[in-house]
Amino acid sequence: MLGSTHGTLTTDSRRARVLACEQPRSGPVTVHGRAVDAPGNPGAPGASGAPGASGAPGASGNTVAAELDVSGRPLHADVPDLDRFFRPESVAVIGASDAEGRPNTGITRQLLAWAERVGARLHPVHPSRGAVFGVPCVPSVAALPEQVDLAVLLVADPLPVIAELGEAKARFAVAFASGFAETGEAGALAQDRLAAAVRESGMRLLGPNTNLNAFEEFRTDLDGPAIALITQSGHQGRPVFALQELGIRLSHWAPTGNEADLETADFISYFAERPEVGAIAAYVEGLKDGRAFLLAADRAARRGVPVVAVKVGRTEAGARTAASHTGKLTGADDVVDAAMRQYGVIRVDGLDELQDTAALLARARPPLADGVAVYSISGGTGAHVADLASAAGLRLPPLSDARQAELHQWIPEFLNVANPVDSGGHPVGDSRGRKIIDAILADPGIGVLICPVTGPFPPLSDRLVRDLVDAAERTDKLVCVVWGSPVGTEAAYREVLLGSSRVATFRTVGNCLTAVRAWLGHHRFVREYRSPFDEAPRTTSPSFRKASALMRPGEQLSEHAAKQLLRAYGIRVPREQLVTSAAAAVRAAGQVGYPVVMKASGARLAHKTELGLVRIGLTSASQVRDAYRELTDTARYEGVELDGVLVCQMVERGVEMVVGVTHDELFGPTVTVGLGGVLVEVLRDAAVRVPPFGEEQARAMLAELRGRALLDGVRGRPPADVEALVEVVLRVQRMALELGGDLAELDINPLVVLPRGQGAVALDALAVCR
Amino acid sequence: MLGSTHGTLTTDSRRARVLACEQPRSGPVTVHGRAVDAPGNPGAPGASGAPGASGAPGASGNTVAAELDVSGRPLHADVPDLDRFFRPESVAVIGASDAEGRPNTGITRQLLAWAERVGARLHPVHPSRGAVFGVPCVPSVAALPEQVDLAVLLVADPLPVIAELGEAKARFAVAFASGFAETGEAGALAQDRLAAAVRESGMRLLGPNTNLNAFEEFRTDLDGPAIALITQSGHQGRPVFALQELGIRLSHWAPTGNEADLETADFISYFAERPEVGAIAAYVEGLKDGRAFLLAADRAARRGVPVVAVKVGRTEAGARTAASHTGKLTGADDVVDAAMRQYGVIRVDGLDELQDTAALLARARPPLADGVAVYSISGGTGAHVADLASAAGLRLPPLSDARQAELHQWIPEFLNVANPVDSGGHPVGDSRGRKIIDAILADPGIGVLICPVTGPFPPLSDRLVRDLVDAAERTDKLVCVVWGSPVGTEAAYREVLLGSSRVATFRTVGNCLTAVRAWLGHHRFVREYRSPFDEAPRTTSPSFRKASALMRPGEQLSEHAAKQLLRAYGIRVPREQLVTSAAAAVRAAGQVGYPVVMKASGARLAHKTELGLVRIGLTSASQVRDAYRELTDTARYEGVELDGVLVCQMVERGVEMVVGVTHDELFGPTVTVGLGGVLVEVLRDAAVRVPPFGEEQARAMLAELRGRALLDGVRGRPPADVEALVEVVLRVQRMALELGGDLAELDINPLVVLPRGQGAVALDALAVCR
Repeated sequence: MLGSTHGTLTTDSRRARVLACEQPRSGPVTVHGRAVDAPGNPGAPGASGAPGASGAPGASGNTVAAELDVSGRPLHADVPDLDRFFRPESVAVIGASDAEGRPNTGITRQLLAWAERVGARLHPVHPSRGAVFGVPCVPSVAALPEQVDLAVLLVADPLPVIAELGEAKARFAVAFASGFAETGEAGALAQDRLAAAVRESGMRLLGPNTNLNAFEEFRTDLDGPAIALITQSGHQGRPVFALQELGIRLSHWAPTGNEADLETADFISYFAERPEVGAIAAYVEGLKDGRAFLLAADRAARRGVPVVAVKVGRTEAGARTAASHTGKLTGADDVVDAAMRQYGVIRVDGLDELQDTAALLARARPPLADGVAVYSISGGTGAHVADLASAAGLRLPPLSDARQAELHQWIPEFLNVANPVDSGGHPVGDSRGRKIIDAILADPGIGVLICPVTGPFPPLSDRLVRDLVDAAERTDKLVCVVWGSPVGTEAAYREVLLGSSRVATFRTVGNCLTAVRAWLGHHRFVREYRSPFDEAPRTTSPSFRKASALMRPGEQLSEHAAKQLLRAYGIRVPREQLVTSAAAAVRAAGQVGYPVVMKASGARLAHKTELGLVRIGLTSASQVRDAYRELTDTARYEGVELDGVLVCQMVERGVEMVVGVTHDELFGPTVTVGLGGVLVEVLRDAAVRVPPFGEEQARAMLAELRGRALLDGVRGRPPADVEALVEVVLRVQRMALELGGDLAELDINPLVVLPRGQGAVALDALAVCR
Repeated sequence: MLGSTHGTLTTDSRRARVLACEQPRSGPVTVHGRAVDAPGNPGAPGASGAPGASGAPGASGNTVAAELDVSGRPLHADVPDLDRFFRPESVAVIGASDAEGRPNTGITRQLLAWAERVGARLHPVHPSRGAVFGVPCVPSVAALPEQVDLAVLLVADPLPVIAELGEAKARFAVAFASGFAETGEAGALAQDRLAAAVRESGMRLLGPNTNLNAFEEFRTDLDGPAIALITQSGHQGRPVFALQELGIRLSHWAPTGNEADLETADFISYFAERPEVGAIAAYVEGLKDGRAFLLAADRAARRGVPVVAVKVGRTEAGARTAASHTGKLTGADDVVDAAMRQYGVIRVDGLDELQDTAALLARARPPLADGVAVYSISGGTGAHVADLASAAGLRLPPLSDARQAELHQWIPEFLNVANPVDSGGHPVGDSRGRKIIDAILADPGIGVLICPVTGPFPPLSDRLVRDLVDAAERTDKLVCVVWGSPVGTEAAYREVLLGSSRVATFRTVGNCLTAVRAWLGHHRFVREYRSPFDEAPRTTSPSFRKASALMRPGEQLSEHAAKQLLRAYGIRVPREQLVTSAAAAVRAAGQVGYPVVMKASGARLAHKTELGLVRIGLTSASQVRDAYRELTDTARYEGVELDGVLVCQMVERGVEMVVGVTHDELFGPTVTVGLGGVLVEVLRDAAVRVPPFGEEQARAMLAELRGRALLDGVRGRPPADVEALVEVVLRVQRMALELGGDLAELDINPLVVLPRGQGAVALDALAVCR
C-alpha cells in the first residue's frame, strides 16, 4: 500500500536489475581488469569524476569492473569521492534568478550566502541576464569561466543541460526538478533517460526531486564525532538536522531524492571513510540496489562506523507469488530486516529514535563493560526503569557487596543499592551525591549509568544533574540522563545537560534504552564481524555441473529430480527409486529395504499428502503392489500426470524443518529455514538471510526460531543434529548462489533432522526453474 | 527481581488475604445486611468516615458487608467519599515546626500556604510551642478546637497518634513516615499494626511513606476534562503533574505510598465518579488487592472513564511452583496484563506514554469514526507515518474518489491524496491549506486526522499549525499534531499548539499512535462492556455437591478421579473404567468398545506417556491382557503406586488443547487455555483470564492464541468445535469459582476438540486439592 514518494521502489526497473545480475555462470568467474582494493582497506581509491560505481541501473556500464562472486554480483563497491561535492570550490547555478516572486530567487539567495560562507566561487548561468543579485552571469554552461565542481540545476527539465555539463567537465550536479519516477510510469521513463545521460556525461548527479539540504548552514562551533545524515526526503531529515540546536554535531546532509545516480549506498560508503563522522543516520524509503546497500553497510561495519536507519515498509504487503511453502513464510520487509541485521545496520522506527540512537552512537566511546546500572533519587523510579531495561534485554548486574557497603556510607541502610541504586533523595543535595555516582561508575562490571530524573526539584535535581555532568566529563564510561519533565525549558536541562557533550541526554526512558541497547549491540557486532564478502564463493563448485544438467528452464521439477539436485550438493535424501510398474515397485522395495514409503511423482505435483498420493509404512510386497495400483488410480482420478511412483526408504523420526530458497526483488536469492509440520505452517516460525552469509549466521537463524527448543530435545527426546542442519543451510546457500536466477524457488519440506550425530534427510523437495 | 519500594508486594500478607477469600462455600451464599447499591449506580453511598471498604487486609472487619460471589469475594466495592480529604475545611498538622533546618519546617510552610490558598483552617499541634509561623499551636490532638477533616502526621512514628485522632473524630490522616513495609519484615509488621489501629479508629489513612503531592498547587485557569493522578511513588507522578505547564488540566494527585489503608483502587473508584475527571492516570508498583482493583476498574468502565496505568513488573520472575502444565504457561505479569485488559485498563510502559495517552483520553471526545487520515506537507513523512500507523493496527481507509478530486483542486494532480494525503508543501502557505484540512475532516470514514510536522519551516509550518488549531476548534473529530522538532522552544509549538485544548499535540509519532490506538480502543471497549460482576455466579450449581465429594484435601487426585470432577461439571470425558485385574480389563474393554487405550492410574501420577504407562490402539482381548500386565510391571519397576488401570474409549483425532486453573497470589484462581502438543509446550501459546469473565472473554482468549488458525482447520482439516471449547472454558471457570481455594490446580491436557458439532473430550486431567 505504501508507494515510494521518491521513485526508488519502481518494480519494473528493479526487476530488470535483478535479472541482470542473475545470469547463470557456467564456469569460474573471470576477474576483470585492475587490482581491486583489498577488503578493509579504508583508503580505497575513489571514483572521482569517473562514472558511477556499484548499483546504478547502468552499473554494467562501469568502466572499472569489480571482482564478482559466483552469482555474478560485485564483491566490492568503489567509494565515490564526494569531497568536492560537499565542499566545492566553484559552483554553477543553472536557472539562477533574482526576479521577485520566483521560487528560484529564494534558492539563489540561499546559494549565494552559502557560497560566501564556504568560500566557493559562484557562477550564475542565465541566457539573458547580465548579473543576478549583482553577481555576473554567463549565458550558458559552455561560457563558464572555469571547470566547476558542482552545478545546481534549478531548471524544470535538467536533461538538456547534462551533456553540456559533461563537456564542461563539471564534477557533480544537483537536480531539484520533480515530476520523475515519483509521479508514475512516464516520470520513471524520463528518469531513466536522465540517468542514461548522466552515465554518458561522466558526471555524478544528486536527485532529481531533491533540494538544498546538503548546503544548509551547519554549526561549526560543535566538536567531537558528528552525525552524517542521508535522507530520501528532506522533510524527514529536519529533526536530525535540528539536533545541532541541542549541541549535537552534524557534518553532512545528503538528501538523495529519486537517486537517479548517487544513492544512499554511495553516501554510506563515503561517510564511513570520513574521520569526523561518528555515526551515519539514514531515512530510507526504498533501496535502489540491494547488493550496493550491503556492500556499503559492509564497509561501514569493517570500519566500525554505525549506521542507524529508518526504513519505511513495515507493513509492505510483500505479496510474493510463490509455489513453495518457504516462499510464503517471509515477506519483503522481513528480508530487509534480516539484511540490515546481517550487516549491522541498526533499524529504528521513529525519527525520534533515529535522532537519539544516532546521537549516542556518534558520541559515546566503546563500552568498557556491558552491565547497566540504574540510579535514581526515588526507589519507585529506579524500579520502574530497571524493569523496562531488563525487558529491553539489558543486563543489570547486582553491585558487589563491597560496593554496596561503600554506597551505604552515604545512603541509608534500608534503601536498595544493589542495582537499581536508590539514594532516597537527600544525599544528592550535598557532597555525597557525587561520591555515589563515582562509586557506581568505579564498578568494573558497570559500563553504563542511567539516571532518570522525572522532574525538576531544584534543591536536589540541579545538584544531581551538575554532578552527573561532572562525573561524565571524567569517566570513559557512558553516563545517560533521562530528563523526564515534558516541559523541557528548565535550565538544568537546557544549559547544564545539553551543555555537555559527554553526558547523553534523553527525554524518554524508552529512547534511552533503545539507544543504549543499540550502542552495546553495535560494538558487540563490530568486535565479532567477519565480512561474508571475503569468504563468498567466487567460482562454481564441482556440484554445479551435475546440478545444471538437472535444470529444466521454466519448469517445476518432479520430486525425484529435485532430490537429485539436492544430492548434487551433498544433501542427503532417502534411498529411493522411481518406478513405472507394480512389479518394478516390488523390486525397488526389496532394494530400498522394508518398510517403504510410496509417493506419486510428477512435475508440478505439490500437496501430495492432501491429494492422497502418499502411502507410508508398507511392509510387504503385496502392500507395495496394492499401493502402486491405488496411487496411480488416484492420480488418474485427480487428473494428475505422473512420471512414475517413488519407492522410498522410511526415515526414522526427527525434528521436521523446512529449508528453502526464494527470490527477493531487491536482494536476489534468499535462504529461509523454519520449523516444519502443520502447526508451524500456522505460526510461520521462520528465519531468512540474504547470501552471502557465514556459518555463524546460519546458527543465528536457528536461534531466532521461537520453537528452537525443539532442536534441543523436549519431553525426553534426544537433541537434534544441529550441525547437520547448519551444513544443509550452507549447502542450500551455495546452490542458490551458483544456480542464481535459474533456480526460482527451492523448498525442502520436510528436512528431517535426526538425533545428534545422525545427520539430516530431505524427505521431500520442490524446485522451480526459471 | 524487582521488589516494591512501597511495600505492597509483601507476599505473606497477600497470601493471607487470598486464603481468607478462598474459604470453600458449601451452599448458597448468604447476602448480609443492608441493600447493596445496584450495579452501575453511579451515586453509590460512600463510606465517609466509616472503616475501609474492600481490600484492606482487614476487609473482613468491615461493618457493612457487600454482596459476595460464589467464591466468597465481593461483587461491589464502596466508593470512599474523599471530598473532605482533597478539599478539607480544617486541618491538623501533628509535628508542625518552624525551627530552622528541620525537614518538617519546609513541609509546615507548604501546608500553611496551601491552607490559605484553599481556605482551610490549619491547627499546628506541638507539645511545647505556643505558635508555629505565627499560627497558634495546640499541645495535643485532644486539645484541637474542632473536629478536623484531615490530620497531617509529620511524626516519625504515627502509630500512637492514630487512636487519639480516632477519638477526636478526625476523618482522614496522611502519614509521611517511612520505614514500614518498604524496608522489610520488621517494617511490614509495624505497618500491619498501623493498619489495625487505623481500622480501629474509624478514620481513613493515606500512607505511610507518602508526601504532600495531594496538596500541591494545581493550576485553576485550565478548563475541560482533567486528569486525576494516582502514584505509589511521588517522584513518578512529577511528569504528569508537569503537564499543567503544557496546558493540560490536572484535578487531583493521590500519592498512595505504602497503602496501609487507602489504596489505588479506592482512588480509581472515587475519581471515576467525579464529573471533572476525564481520565485517570496511575503509576502502580504493586497491587494490594486484586479483587478491589478489578471492582474499581469495573466501576470506571461502567462510567466510561478511562484508566491508563504503568504497572511495574514486566520482568517479574513469576516463579510459580505448579505441578500442572498450564500452571507454567503464564507468569504473574501475564495475569496482571490480562486482568487489566478484561476491565479496560490501558497499560503503558513509559511515563511519557502515560502522559500522552492520559491527556488524549481525558480531553478527546468519543470518536465519530475509526478511520485515521495522515496528512503532511511531505510525501515521505506521510508514507512513513502511515506505515507506522498501519503497523500499530490503525485503519487508514483510502478517501473516496470524490474527496480526492476535491483535494486535487488545491493539490497538484501527481501527488498522492488517497491517504496519506501529501500536499506537496506550497498549498499550506495560503487559503488552500485550511480547505485541505476541512475536506479531510469532512470525510465520513475519517475520525482522526494526524498531521506530522517534522520541523519548523515558518513560511509553511506556522500557517499549517494555525490552520490545524482553527480546524480542531471547529470539528468534533480528533486532530493530532506531532511536533517533531527536538528543540521544542518554537513559538508555533509552545504558543499555538499548546495554547489549544482542542488539538492534541505530541512530540513523537510513536506516542501519538499509542494514544490514538488507546483512545479508539477505549471507546470500543466501553461501548461493548458488560460487567462480568453482574453475571457472576452467587450460589453454587448442582455440580458443586458432586464435586465436593471427590475432593481430597492436600492430595493430587488420580486421573480417574480428576475426570469424575470434570464430569460433575458436565465436561465430556471418554468412556472408561478403572480395573484392578487383567480379566476385569478385558471385560471393561468389551463394555467401553474396541479399540481402547489403557493407562496406569494413581494419585500423584503425571507424565504417564514419558514413563511408558500408556498403551493406545488396543484392538483385542489378548492385547488388553498383555497391556495390563506390562503396565503394572512397568509401574512396579518405576516404583509408582497405582490404584488400578484405566481402560478408555479411543477418541477420534481433533485439535489438542490444554485448559487449566492456577492460583494467582493477587487475583486468586485464573483460567488458562492453550494449544496442546509438544510443539506448543515449547512455544507457550496460551491465554489467561481472571474470573469472573463472560463468554466473549472466553472467545477472546482463543483469538489471542498465535496458533488459533488450527481451530479453523488447516490443510484441509475440518474446523474444530469452538463452541464446545468455549463451553469447557466457562465450565472450568465455574468449577474454579465454586471450589475456590480447595482446588489448587486443574489441568486438562489434552482436551481434544473434535470437528464442529461433535464436541470436545478431556483425554487426561490432573487436579490438585488444597
